[in-house]
Amino acid sequence: MATSPDSLVLHTTDNGVSWITLNRPAAMNALTWDQRERIIDLLAGASADPGVRAVVITATGKGFCAGADLRGAPSAGGERVAGDVARMIRQGAQRFIGAVLDCEKPVIAAVNGTAAGIGAHLALACDLVLAGESARFIEVFVRRGLVPDGGGAYLLPRLIGPQRAKELVFFGDAVSAAEAERLGLVNRVVPDGELAKTAREWAERLAAGPTRALALTKQLVNASLDSDRAAAFAAEATAQEINMTTADAQEGVASFVERRSPTYRGR
Amino acid sequence: MATSPDSLVLHTTDNGVSWITLNRPAAMNALTWDQRERIIDLLAGASADPGVRAVVITATGKGFCAGADLRGAPSAGGERVAGDVARMIRQGAQRFIGAVLDCEKPVIAAVNGTAAGIGAHLALACDLVLAGESARFIEVFVRRGLVPDGGGAYLLPRLIGPQRAKELVFFGDAVSAAEAERLGLVNRVVPDGELAKTAREWAERLAAGPTRALALTKQLVNASLDSDRAAAFAAEATAQEINMTTADAQEGVASFVERRSPTYRGR
Amino acid sequence: MATSPDSLVLHTTDNGVSWITLNRPAAMNALTWDQRERIIDLLAGASADPGVRAVVITATGKGFCAGADLRGAPSAGGERVAGDVARMIRQGAQRFIGAVLDCEKPVIAAVNGTAAGIGAHLALACDLVLAGESARFIEVFVRRGLVPDGGGAYLLPRLIGPQRAKELVFFGDAVSAAEAERLGLVNRVVPDGELAKTAREWAERLAAGPTRALALTKQLVNASLDSDRAAAFAAEATAQEINMTTADAQEGVASFVERRSPTYRGR
Repeated sequence: MATSPDSLVLHTTDNGVSWITLNRPAAMNALTWDQRERIIDLLAGASADPGVRAVVITATGKGFCAGADLRGAPSAGGERVAGDVARMIRQGAQRFIGAVLDCEKPVIAAVNGTAAGIGAHLALACDLVLAGESARFIEVFVRRGLVPDGGGAYLLPRLIGPQRAKELVFFGDAVSAAEAERLGLVNRVVPDGELAKTAREWAERLAAGPTRALALTKQLVNASLDSDRAAAFAAEATAQEINMTTADAQEGVASFVERRSPTYRGR
Repeated sequence: MATSPDSLVLHTTDNGVSWITLNRPAAMNALTWDQRERIIDLLAGASADPGVRAVVITATGKGFCAGADLRGAPSAGGERVAGDVARMIRQGAQRFIGAVLDCEKPVIAAVNGTAAGIGAHLALACDLVLAGESARFIEVFVRRGLVPDGGGAYLLPRLIGPQRAKELVFFGDAVSAAEAERLGLVNRVVPDGELAKTAREWAERLAAGPTRALALTKQLVNASLDSDRAAAFAAEATAQEINMTTADAQEGVASFVERRSPTYRGR
Repeated sequence: MATSPDSLVLHTTDNGVSWITLNRPAAMNALTWDQRERIIDLLAGASADPGVRAVVITATGKGFCAGADLRGAPSAGGERVAGDVARMIRQGAQRFIGAVLDCEKPVIAAVNGTAAGIGAHLALACDLVLAGESARFIEVFVRRGLVPDGGGAYLLPRLIGPQRAKELVFFGDAVSAAEAERLGLVNRVVPDGELAKTAREWAERLAAGPTRALALTKQLVNASLDSDRAAAFAAEATAQEINMTTADAQEGVASFVERRSPTYRGR
């Protein structure tokens, strides 16, 4: 268990779970360039570290993530040079959201408060989303004259269909936790005081699972709406081939035959 | 503000909103060839006209649109020549639905009564769908021995998934406004007497928004389930690049920095 | 009406409906290799037989299908040869699910009890899913250290979105009939005692429909989320062209003009 409590991003690994905690509560966790890069690094680390078998992303204070605060970014001064925008988006918001989608361990968002702009997309890119009752989701871009970045228009229609996605992105109104659950933006809403505990239960349960099978399954589900049946079936067959070489798959089948509980070691 | 009240399609532009009103109430607004062509023209005009920043499609009387009534079509006599069908569909129902999907301004359907066949697809192709309590949606094709046209099989699974889509298209039963809301076919159901008022509120709010950003966002959302992550992210980056050249994006960011409300002028 | 009651798969054709009934209740209808091959044959037969115009898949006893029981498979001994897995998946679970998806008659699942693993995917691949109150759905793979096979990661995100799909496949918990209805996994939940009757009503209604139009519509809906708008519209135009050559389409249009009920003969 290692903690770096002084950082703007707290990080702890505990019982196989990597906890990534945005820690800039006075700014409602508006995301700085440094925080973003740190989270990308931590997610890459979680993918590679056999001791990490699930990830939780959460935040301190009353906000989850208020959106982008790129004041610290090297290339983001007051003036933008024409032509820079697309590259900044690719290397910034899109690389960030891609890091969540491509993390090889299951990632749970524990949304403790307002998730706005890229903060909403950070939550929605996670595999599972838990929300405290005071969480809310705001597609704030339209209020600033902007187009959603970090894959909002990619993620939202997959979760709630294009019509409801448009209502969110066209109006930019706050969506309450209860409404988010009704729409299908979150898996579960829990009382604020139980958010961390529920996230821990979910994450530790996943961390005790067959890690490689979960990674392959995540990949297949993420690719599902990006591909057709032939491609999805081919990917599934390959994933099965890979998974059957793991000790966990052998343990799973053996435990079933032997009528006992399996013990997965994540490989 | 211009009105042509004598037409089968009423048209008014007011406060930046183009109101397109089917006006053949005695026929429950079964759609004639002339009406269809007129609506396609009006939508193309709305895209090009900087004075139009949102569109509402609605109808007079008790029906929204009872489906196709192609008696007036030049080539649609009693006999169809083999080989004509696919071309008629492409140039007719599909071009019509495509005109809604591709309109560069947000389009709201205000569904005042029965939306059947192509009338249902007209509503569902709109970006946002408001329904009066007496609205109902009928995938009537199967009752006439027909395959849904105008993209029904394309639109419905995106909105409500393939399983529920099949229930609608296989049985052709009327879906009430309340049930449509539960399934996810409409954004909101309101009392019949409040339909026009709510549509006006929504449309005027959109018309006061950053029009170019909304157009680009609409395009991204519409393309979302047609593309994979790489294509969606590339399109997003391009859309951002375009949007950042607009006065509205600059106003949006400036107003945020200056802690005041933005005033968007639609360019 | 032909019955083969001694088989592990009962089969009856009645009023145009092919009833396929898993009949290994003591094993909760865990699916053997022989049963799987028999169902694939029956579905191919249903596609080709003009006397069959709808299919129901159900089971005897308290389980719908407890998953794969491949003990009888020629090539599935205790040891698997590396390299065999992908091929077994393609020729087994994927070919099985593909047979349901590609059956040219509408297929209704009447889920009478637990549908686990490939049994859940069997149900979800059907066009319409009716569930008795005691039905439940279990993505059991993760419990055995396995990746879902037979297209689970393909089907689930289309039905309920990727986020809720991940909750099911990551945890492998049982989903009750009521919860399945809420999530959108089933069309309708009915009391157990009314399951067969409701399935019969739905199937006989479909069997009285325009069979070719239904087949073409099914194909379009199944392809919808696998394709983009251009491809979907082209497929729709072709389907219309084909359908307009059928007697049922002509009967449907004629009956409408003549203000009488249509009589469809399935061709």
